[in-house]
Amino acid sequence: MQWDSYFAKRTELTTRSTIRELLKYTIQPEVISFAGGLPAPELFPVERIRQATNTVLTQHGPEALQYSTTEGMPELRSFLAQRLSSETLSVKPENILIVTGSQQALDLIARVFVNERDRVILENPTYLGMLQTLKPYDLTYLPVTTDDDGMRIEALPELLRQQPKLMYVVPTYQNPQGTTLTKQRRLDLIHMLEPYPVPLVEDNPYSELCYTGEIEPSLMELDAQSLGIRELNGRVIYTSTFSKILSPGLRVGWIAAPLPVIDKLVAVKQSTDLHTSTFVQYIINEVVRDGFLESHIAQLRTTYRQRRDIMLAAMEHYFPQEVSWSHPAGGLFLMVYLPQYIDAQELLQEALAYKVAFVPGVDFHVGNSGHNTFRLNFSHESPPMIEEGMKRLGQLLKNAIQQKDLPLRV
Amino acid sequence: MQWDSYFAKRTELTTRSTIRELLKYTIQPEVISFAGGLPAPELFPVERIRQATNTVLTQHGPEALQYSTTEGMPELRSFLAQRLSSETLSVKPENILIVTGSQQALDLIARVFVNERDRVILENPTYLGMLQTLKPYDLTYLPVTTDDDGMRIEALPELLRQQPKLMYVVPTYQNPQGTTLTKQRRLDLIHMLEPYPVPLVEDNPYSELCYTGEIEPSLMELDAQSLGIRELNGRVIYTSTFSKILSPGLRVGWIAAPLPVIDKLVAVKQSTDLHTSTFVQYIINEVVRDGFLESHIAQLRTTYRQRRDIMLAAMEHYFPQEVSWSHPAGGLFLMVYLPQYIDAQELLQEALAYKVAFVPGVDFHVGNSGHNTFRLNFSHESPPMIEEGMKRLGQLLKNAIQQKDLPLRV
Repeated sequence: MQWDSYFAKRTELTTRSTIRELLKYTIQPEVISFAGGLPAPELFPVERIRQATNTVLTQHGPEALQYSTTEGMPELRSFLAQRLSSETLSVKPENILIVTGSQQALDLIARVFVNERDRVILENPTYLGMLQTLKPYDLTYLPVTTDDDGMRIEALPELLRQQPKLMYVVPTYQNPQGTTLTKQRRLDLIHMLEPYPVPLVEDNPYSELCYTGEIEPSLMELDAQSLGIRELNGRVIYTSTFSKILSPGLRVGWIAAPLPVIDKLVAVKQSTDLHTSTFVQYIINEVVRDGFLESHIAQLRTTYRQRRDIMLAAMEHYFPQEVSWSHPAGGLFLMVYLPQYIDAQELLQEALAYKVAFVPGVDFHVGNSGHNTFRLNFSHESPPMIEEGMKRLGQLLKNAIQQKDLPLRV
Repeated sequence: MQWDSYFAKRTELTTRSTIRELLKYTIQPEVISFAGGLPAPELFPVERIRQATNTVLTQHGPEALQYSTTEGMPELRSFLAQRLSSETLSVKPENILIVTGSQQALDLIARVFVNERDRVILENPTYLGMLQTLKPYDLTYLPVTTDDDGMRIEALPELLRQQPKLMYVVPTYQNPQGTTLTKQRRLDLIHMLEPYPVPLVEDNPYSELCYTGEIEPSLMELDAQSLGIRELNGRVIYTSTFSKILSPGLRVGWIAAPLPVIDKLVAVKQSTDLHTSTFVQYIINEVVRDGFLESHIAQLRTTYRQRRDIMLAAMEHYFPQEVSWSHPAGGLFLMVYLPQYIDAQELLQEALAYKVAFVPGVDFHVGNSGHNTFRLNFSHESPPMIEEGMKRLGQLLKNAIQQKDLPLRV
């Protein structure tokens, strides 16, 4: 079979994720890797999950191993609805769809909304998993540049006039930069959107991992407030996940959205994987009971805050002055900005030889930008490894800068 | 938001599955339901899963809860490769992709191969989950009629000349009819396909649930034999699942395919859900060790064979002579064929009032056919409930036949 001639047109546009391919090299134990978005495995609540599994199998064995509804386990939907509700917003269990990790949320949203060659507004840089999901649709991206405070929203009105089909934002501790859209910009964004009925996708996997200051209100909440409603019935389609606050290996995330959107998402999810693992939903529902999640998140915050601080201090110490970086108030990532003449993909080859890894920024960018940036994860490696890794990277960067006059870029 | 005007074109074509919607009514405990494809929950190996989970959390807690590769857990891929290999076929771990239930296999295959408005050959009737997956692509179906021995392959040459993009078959204990493509037809099918380089999707979730006679060789094996090769490198893309032989609530299935196909499927799966639950893969890998699956499947066969026999005997006893049905040698389903003047969807409304449920056949059919058929599942209800259910259905059918001259159909 000449398989190439049998693949669909969209398949030709599909590419593998650099990060996931890179992971194959970085799981070698001798490599200090800042590449993945991996939580610290030593913090996984193994015993709590063991107890929860035992309880589930004792009390609900047959149901937990059987087929279940596409929408998700009712108790877990209720838990999440309650958790997302606030003084001004009332999220109902019916507004929640349980999904197989928030990557599936992005995939389902794209399938439900996006026609081939539509226009989509997104931050530049943005989450590369979303770019990968959107790639087969051959879209026109309307990128919004970013600074330390997230999207530079003054560019929005012109983009909104171009009839975008969707707007996608990671407003809090963004992947890849770790930056956060300020409250004022959130308010201005919601206000600017008023004349344009474009759906707004708020991808929010990191907001609970807050290390400095307070968590900003979600766009979902501000949107409802601006409409003067308490129900989740505005323009925002919100998604988050248990991957960063519990365990990514469970693969459970959720979407919160107005009912007509949930209805369509459910229909598409049915044809995609029927439903998310019943067994894992039961276990999570048992794990998160009685305030466990709050105490666990508090522990994650303490550990990750310390690792962030160690990384920032080590960068300050080892990195040359020609290099700058973002200073995240939460999340898992920060971004390094190199002089224009350094290509981070080339630098990665040298870094791997030094047994240290990061993700080049170019894959998070649309248009021809970001070649001189890379992303660092600070949650996964231990403090001594972070220190050692920054030392190696600092040396590499100094070498690269000294070689400025040599033909480094091909 | 006027959401309807924001959905993609393909979303308008998407519909919810009748079965999954029906399940919401049939989970009422007083309804005797033959509607779902549900395994018997009392046979789920709850204690084995408990032990396996404990072992996994003790020995591999951090890895089992972390992100993992899209391809799937190496040990589980090896197990499946070995299990699919035979004297004439050598399946390698690299030929295996672990997926989130075999519904995801169908979705990924459709995404990788099918362009909008392509032609696809399939049995009529066929698995409605595949029809639901294909619906957004606005395809032209080239249906092959079926009889007691599966597809009537004499119709194939004409269809193959119409340049189909894909051929989809459930050759063994087919859903919905329970019928099996005979060995001779399998050989003839592979032979007929020779001049046409069309990929052949073999959906095979039921073949281990064999109650009478022997399991026929897979199309995957026969295809390799006809090519004179031992490797999995022909036209067949094979999929199956742990749902029917272990537990559907775990949501783990697999695809076995030539390497260039696996490569594309992996790229698409990455953007769909990153990977299937690491935790559940570890648990399954632990559960299936040391021949457990063989002894468990033997138990399933004994129970399901008995239920099939009880159902067939009760139908013989209670059903009117105007009605006929298929006699499956394995699997979970059989199909009932009514006189043309009875519409099974209307009959279902009456059946629900009698607290008995089935799935009308029309959703398994393409073209305007199958309105006078329905599917019965025989694995889920206990023998007394099967007996009682057939009694109620028999009475309903007798009533419907006596009302022949009344305007039953609207």
